[in-house]
Amino acid sequence: VTEFELIARILPSLPTNESVVVGAGDDCAVLNLGLPGRHLLFKTDAVVEGVHFLPDALAERVGHKALARCLSDIAAMGGTAGSAVVSLGLPADRDPAWAEGVYQGLRRLALKYQVAIVGGETTACPHNAFLSVAVLGQVEAGKAVLRSGAKVGDAIFVTGELGGSRAGRHLTFEPRLEEARWLCRRFDVHAMIDLSDGLAGDLRHLLQASHVGAELLTEAIPVSPAAKSAARRAHGATAALTAALTDGEDFELLFTVAPADAVPLLDQWKTAFPELRLGCVGKITSEPGVRLRDRKGARPLTAHGYVHFQ
Amino acid sequence: VTEFELIARILPSLPTNESVVVGAGDDCAVLNLGLPGRHLLFKTDAVVEGVHFLPDALAERVGHKALARCLSDIAAMGGTAGSAVVSLGLPADRDPAWAEGVYQGLRRLALKYQVAIVGGETTACPHNAFLSVAVLGQVEAGKAVLRSGAKVGDAIFVTGELGGSRAGRHLTFEPRLEEARWLCRRFDVHAMIDLSDGLAGDLRHLLQASHVGAELLTEAIPVSPAAKSAARRAHGATAALTAALTDGEDFELLFTVAPADAVPLLDQWKTAFPELRLGCVGKITSEPGVRLRDRKGARPLTAHGYVHFQ
Repeated sequence: VTEFELIARILPSLPTNESVVVGAGDDCAVLNLGLPGRHLLFKTDAVVEGVHFLPDALAERVGHKALARCLSDIAAMGGTAGSAVVSLGLPADRDPAWAEGVYQGLRRLALKYQVAIVGGETTACPHNAFLSVAVLGQVEAGKAVLRSGAKVGDAIFVTGELGGSRAGRHLTFEPRLEEARWLCRRFDVHAMIDLSDGLAGDLRHLLQASHVGAELLTEAIPVSPAAKSAARRAHGATAALTAALTDGEDFELLFTVAPADAVPLLDQWKTAFPELRLGCVGKITSEPGVRLRDRKGARPLTAHGYVHFQ
Repeated sequence: VTEFELIARILPSLPTNESVVVGAGDDCAVLNLGLPGRHLLFKTDAVVEGVHFLPDALAERVGHKALARCLSDIAAMGGTAGSAVVSLGLPADRDPAWAEGVYQGLRRLALKYQVAIVGGETTACPHNAFLSVAVLGQVEAGKAVLRSGAKVGDAIFVTGELGGSRAGRHLTFEPRLEEARWLCRRFDVHAMIDLSDGLAGDLRHLLQASHVGAELLTEAIPVSPAAKSAARRAHGATAALTAALTDGEDFELLFTVAPADAVPLLDQWKTAFPELRLGCVGKITSEPGVRLRDRKGARPLTAHGYVHFQ
């Protein structure tokens, strides 16, 4: 039993109360505090030096990434972000300018999305820096998009291009808040998740929550230039497609809609977001698990996606 | 410039929005989201192995402490806690039972105060464990007790006994939620703060926010048995009084009320909380800074209180 399996076992038994609409386990918790017509979204996430960023990463980008990860989770619920609190852990010998840089990155991204930063704690951390952010958001009551709503026959969509994020994009990605709000206003999104662990891993999370399976079309997986270029450098040691499925840290949106919505969605998306690719990568099936279909037929996908902890 | 001075400079310039009633810098942020008659309280805090707990601390107590620190901040605003989210950082070689123990400590304390735990993230942290908790609470609109409301002439009160907490109590303390609610329902509490950095340090935070000073009565400072016993063992190297003023991690409440409320408060407190000491330790003055008065007269208090980072 790893720590992660253990936590997965613990989460369903955590204390709850009458305010909890959705507890731990989705991209955000959903709370009903009696706000007319609205629910709150609540989420925390941490980035750790040596795990989510390397010591030579620009401090501004570390701050950006820490907040952007939480905002990506708010986006994946179809919500808007309102405020954030920050805990910063610093080794004793860290240049104070580093902490200032982290806050510059936090501040710039927060301003862009009108997020107030309403708490900043700093603590010592002997060996490596970390940054933990919690975000409070809102969504129309009953409209939070969960992982559990996918239906057999749904079309599966992915924004952007996947793989190779650790070459740089993981520190600079844009949370898809605007796109998710647009999407949820215009279409009945059945299920949504943000891609942090890789398409293969996060699709499985969505499928398990929805008690369904999926078939992906190999040729439809949007492989990023970074993944292709890494595959060329490695002389095929890691195929670009595998990278797109399992690298993780893409922070794009994966969602499903009824098949009748697929073509209208693609049409309207091109007008609304001409610079961001949206691709239909497959469909939801009743058979559990994930299958990859190419010209030679369909085969089970066994790769599990990127796991941070190693 | 230390990291902490830097953050203190950064906090006032953090992004805000129309929902923010009180931003970073008090025990909790206060948010007005349009909830009829109520404001939200929002706070995050982290405990780090080697700084806030030692590797041999019981895991349950680490979980208890991490949540109790946030609940103590909710208490210091006069509020109630509703939900919490958790980020746990774990070294790769950590026994999974340790993470389970942390969650047992979190769960037990959360159940006691009807706090829902609605998010649990786990991440690798190469060298030392950490636990970051964010808590969402509520308070009657306009009734949050800030650090900034102390008035000249106010009586200064402290719950419990101070000093020597690191001998054990810092891992097992009870957040003063019940006492703070009782207090705020019955009395006009002008200013309040929870004692995390030590009476000397946290009183200064309250005084600076209120633009006043204070005179403490040496004989009235409630020195804990742990501080007295440590002082005996050290043969006076650290006086018990100094320990009570500067050790920190007491997580008791420091607050001020009008002088006319002092005697009724002490009377009613004895009936309500017969097992928890409440002491009047001094008064608010117009002259800035802190003075200690004993039989020989008054002298400035220069000790700055416990600073975690060293």
